[in-house]
Amino acid sequence: MIVLGIDPGTVAAGYGAVERRPGGGRLLDCGAVRAPRGRPLAERLRLIHDGLAEVIRRVRPDVAVVEKPFAGTNLATAIAIGEARGVALLACAARSVPVAEYSPAEIKRSVTGRGSARKEQVALMVKTILGLAEAPRPADATDALAAAICWLHREPERRAAAAAAAEKRGG
Amino acid sequence: MIVLGIDPGTVAAGYGAVERRPGGGRLLDCGAVRAPRGRPLAERLRLIHDGLAEVIRRVRPDVAVVEKPFAGTNLATAIAIGEARGVALLACAARSVPVAEYSPAEIKRSVTGRGSARKEQVALMVKTILGLAEAPRPADATDALAAAICWLHREPERRAAAAAAAEKRGG
Repeated sequence: MIVLGIDPGTVAAGYGAVERRPGGGRLLDCGAVRAPRGRPLAERLRLIHDGLAEVIRRVRPDVAVVEKPFAGTNLATAIAIGEARGVALLACAARSVPVAEYSPAEIKRSVTGRGSARKEQVALMVKTILGLAEAPRPADATDALAAAICWLHREPERRAAAAAAAEKRGG
Repeated sequence: MIVLGIDPGTVAAGYGAVERRPGGGRLLDCGAVRAPRGRPLAERLRLIHDGLAEVIRRVRPDVAVVEKPFAGTNLATAIAIGEARGVALLACAARSVPVAEYSPAEIKRSVTGRGSARKEQVALMVKTILGLAEAPRPADATDALAAAICWLHREPERRAAAAAAAEKRGG
């Protein structure tokens, strides 16, 4: 089972692929797709999309995990996040990769135990959970890896929900 | 010169292609690409993207015009607009179609003379400017056609700016 976390942005999109292992996960690949700031928005979105599509072809994830947009951001930021999310989700749909979404607080809580954890705490826990000698590089990949780890941590919950649903159907 | 207006949405994306004519424009094609509400977001974005890509292949526009997001909308709406814009801009970039952007007020002012015009006034003026017997159908295409008309109306301005820039370089 391979889980690909994606942290979409219109200048850089972080990604991190984790393979499920008993009690955690193993880092397969991480990095960031970049688009030069000076280029027109449409062109940057094309670069981000094509880069993520290439990652998906290479990594062949069973599921992709994308952060749900956070509240309290301003409108211009929300639009830009939406634009980047749009092309990231498209790249997943084009390869029929199902997409799961978690809020930033859910991801932080799942990785560090605290929904309000700081960036460095998340990086430290990602490093620990994946058994890495160093924090993941580039730093842009950290949030993507945290999203993938959140998906793995939620597995018992998903199994329980599926079992309950099956029991309900059966009974 | 063919101008394609696009009004991106995650459930329906309106489009309208106008050919430049002296004193106005001629309607070439208009319609809406739809994505069923019940489908996952990523799948809807793929349908919107692929539909718009097909329109661009068919219409072969020289320029595409997309509304700039409006202020005062809420966060969830802004994200959704961004997602739809993202895949629309991507479809343009994939065929190297340059993209122009105008705010809703600029488009309304250019088409009706008033930045705060109501939807029906915009539809009436689009019909009049394009010399149509009826308001454009589907209604989703109206804003896209208005955006394309705005681009055509701005041509004298663009020429003047280009001439001024050329003169400055020359002098």
